[in-house]
Amino acid sequence: MTHPTERPTTTTRRTVLRGTAATAALATAGLAATGSAHATDVPPKTGGSDGPRIGILLYDGYSLLDPTGPAEVLSRVPGASVTMIAERRGPVRTDTGDVAVLAERALDEAGRLDVLLVPGAGNRGTIAAMRNRTLLDWIRETNRRTRYTTSVCTGSLILAAAGLLDGRRATTYWASAPYMEKTFDITYVPERYVKSGKFITSAGVSAGLDMALYLAAKLTDDDTAKAIQLAVEYDPRPPFDAGNAQEASEELKARALKILEDSQV
Amino acid sequence: MTHPTERPTTTTRRTVLRGTAATAALATAGLAATGSAHATDVPPKTGGSDGPRIGILLYDGYSLLDPTGPAEVLSRVPGASVTMIAERRGPVRTDTGDVAVLAERALDEAGRLDVLLVPGAGNRGTIAAMRNRTLLDWIRETNRRTRYTTSVCTGSLILAAAGLLDGRRATTYWASAPYMEKTFDITYVPERYVKSGKFITSAGVSAGLDMALYLAAKLTDDDTAKAIQLAVEYDPRPPFDAGNAQEASEELKARALKILEDSQV
Repeated sequence: MTHPTERPTTTTRRTVLRGTAATAALATAGLAATGSAHATDVPPKTGGSDGPRIGILLYDGYSLLDPTGPAEVLSRVPGASVTMIAERRGPVRTDTGDVAVLAERALDEAGRLDVLLVPGAGNRGTIAAMRNRTLLDWIRETNRRTRYTTSVCTGSLILAAAGLLDGRRATTYWASAPYMEKTFDITYVPERYVKSGKFITSAGVSAGLDMALYLAAKLTDDDTAKAIQLAVEYDPRPPFDAGNAQEASEELKARALKILEDSQV
Repeated sequence: MTHPTERPTTTTRRTVLRGTAATAALATAGLAATGSAHATDVPPKTGGSDGPRIGILLYDGYSLLDPTGPAEVLSRVPGASVTMIAERRGPVRTDTGDVAVLAERALDEAGRLDVLLVPGAGNRGTIAAMRNRTLLDWIRETNRRTRYTTSVCTGSLILAAAGLLDGRRATTYWASAPYMEKTFDITYVPERYVKSGKFITSAGVSAGLDMALYLAAKLTDDDTAKAIQLAVEYDPRPPFDAGNAQEASEELKARALKILEDSQV
């Protein structure tokens, strides 16, 4: 059969499941039901949606899970649109060089956002973003109209470099906490996510998932956020219990940082 | 300053942190150290690496976290390369239509893989992949030489459609379990991940993170996997405890499936 991307029109692709009886198909044997779908005039999701407009800033060298974990969760918020934004449209590559996510909008095309999320990066990407006046100006300007301005991992250092976190409580990647406190007027809080006014910062990489569920509840209500949690089956059970820096040995922390460095390009 | 992608050569971009004293920069105030880096002849990571070659299959309508969560973890395995693969190179869009990840290799360019990972998708994407003979043939052929063949969420239905899970224990997205057991000769096991021979299947969406850590330990050792867990600060603390379908009310399950359907294009 033909590849799904070869379907003739975007509208057809978008409407395969809409208005059909296939709602609970994943839960049942209804996998065969999609053949009965009709193409109807459903607007592009990122255009005419009535829910929150969520923008995620990509920049060279970000860590892959930082934007994609929250995007997975937040794209389930009813009516929400999630848009990847960068200085220029096109693929933006991660810190390890392995993966690129497409930026769909350039900075000046992003428009008003209800939520801005700034992901973290390795050393190289974080430094470059903290020194990039174009990015920092756009963050400051965008922040003027957001309901929430948020970050994952070292993204909080970029918000701080934009001057948005002065005098606030915030969190960041565990290994960046001393730098954050030394460099900025910020009180570091070692939690998965920290809300201060409209700013919500989260800890390293995977903490964006926890923050995104919290944010989903803020944007909707607890019951909706719980349904999203079940929808993405977020019942975490890692095989080890080694993810908390406050409980980690110096040896493990050194090893983690070495692994990070060696994985980055 | 210029945007990082404007740096003159790829080699320069890749080597900014290599061979410098900036190793632990995120842990200290060493953020300024990168200016001293020199361009050296570092090969592309996906080419000459000596670690496991990990390939992740993308197809239209996958769920974003399914490939990206494991990619975040597995790209930290020493020497590993992680490559996004699809029928054709280029952007491949998620089930919600919000995000596209770049496929770096077409199927016939993927070569031998040590690990194959097949992500899950919404109803539309899962069905199309299960019916796509080109994909299924490639999965079967690639599987002949893998050390591990793995899946996230409904990706196990695609492995099953390729005939790889007959007679095995496996897991899948919670809502797809009845379909899996009815359609295939598989014993569904409601765990975060299930190993059967060289096949490792994982539960829905976020379960790929847990599976990837387990797989990282298999590819290296427990201490390395623990260091990776700390490197991505995976100490999950969701604000709710609603991610386990076996403990969820019928109402919450119905709501989760409705949210999924409404979020998909």
